[in-house]
Amino acid sequence: MEDDNHLREHTHSSEEILNGKFLHAFRDTVTLPDGGSATREYFVHPGAVMVIPLLQDDAGQIRVVLERQFRYPIGQVMVEFPAGKLDAGETVQFCAQRELLEETGYTATEWARAGQMRPAIAYSTEFIDIWFARDLTPGAAKLDAGEFLEVFTATPEELLQWCQQGRVTDAKTLTGALWLQQVLQGSWPLQWGAALPMP
Amino acid sequence: MEDDNHLREHTHSSEEILNGKFLHAFRDTVTLPDGGSATREYFVHPGAVMVIPLLQDDAGQIRVVLERQFRYPIGQVMVEFPAGKLDAGETVQFCAQRELLEETGYTATEWARAGQMRPAIAYSTEFIDIWFARDLTPGAAKLDAGEFLEVFTATPEELLQWCQQGRVTDAKTLTGALWLQQVLQGSWPLQWGAALPMP
Repeated sequence: MEDDNHLREHTHSSEEILNGKFLHAFRDTVTLPDGGSATREYFVHPGAVMVIPLLQDDAGQIRVVLERQFRYPIGQVMVEFPAGKLDAGETVQFCAQRELLEETGYTATEWARAGQMRPAIAYSTEFIDIWFARDLTPGAAKLDAGEFLEVFTATPEELLQWCQQGRVTDAKTLTGALWLQQVLQGSWPLQWGAALPMP
Repeated sequence: MEDDNHLREHTHSSEEILNGKFLHAFRDTVTLPDGGSATREYFVHPGAVMVIPLLQDDAGQIRVVLERQFRYPIGQVMVEFPAGKLDAGETVQFCAQRELLEETGYTATEWARAGQMRPAIAYSTEFIDIWFARDLTPGAAKLDAGEFLEVFTATPEELLQWCQQGRVTDAKTLTGALWLQQVLQGSWPLQWGAALPMP
């Protein structure tokens, strides 16, 4: 990678400015590349995982599992791939398996890590690890208290059409659509592995 | 669209919990679909615009204009499409033209709106409007004080390879890569219009 020293900022001091139930924010004073100083405010996030779950219907056509969920900051029901935050001490693959089970009821025997995305690089430390799951078995979802969502399936073509039309605007799901298309056309091959044992 | 009343949450009360220089956060009490109550914490954001600027080299090959910028919450230099926040009262197309000029020095005679994305639907009201620009003329960038970034160009194939390899992880730029690929292969046609007059 290129030498980044002429772009890099260095932490001078840091203070917590919000310790909410969910949001934790800091204000740091930083030294700029030219020696000047500036303020950076950001939210510290534990990280998250998104799952792109692949089903095959009776005719052999691939379908993906999606959710419809009301997102309060947006004021709308959003179409999304299953996703959730990491619990303390949890590996990303375990989190992926747990969130798929809790939100959709599905378990999968095969898993592949695709990559990572950063949703809001200007003001959040959040990463979302991107996983594919296949060989799915349906079961009962185990939603958290206060969590309401609907699970449904769609073809990759339907998902892409919704991305074009603006019915899908969630950035993680748009990124998932990019990965899905590249994987299905064979351009971005995945390395599949076994599911981790779940308790 | 489907009836969403069984998923929808309603605001009961709202309080500001952070009034920072950049971050403004609220904690709302909401009524859940089953009549229960819950807390929602979120950032209020003015909205932003991302530009996918298309160049053609001497051989007629398309290239896109990209930036390398240090992102403090991530601690890394990120590869991104040009983007920036809306100023008060500004239209999204004007913001797109202004940010492209300020950050890269380019002006474009033709503009097309592609769609919108929502970077962090769990905790931010932010939207990013996605625009394409073509027929570019280079000029001098006008960076804000404390803003340091490098402008460069790449082919769409290079950008997609970086998305696959994890060199591009910014969610807006990954979403831009999806749009770019679909537009260049003719699947998602754009409606081009003229640039707005700039002061």
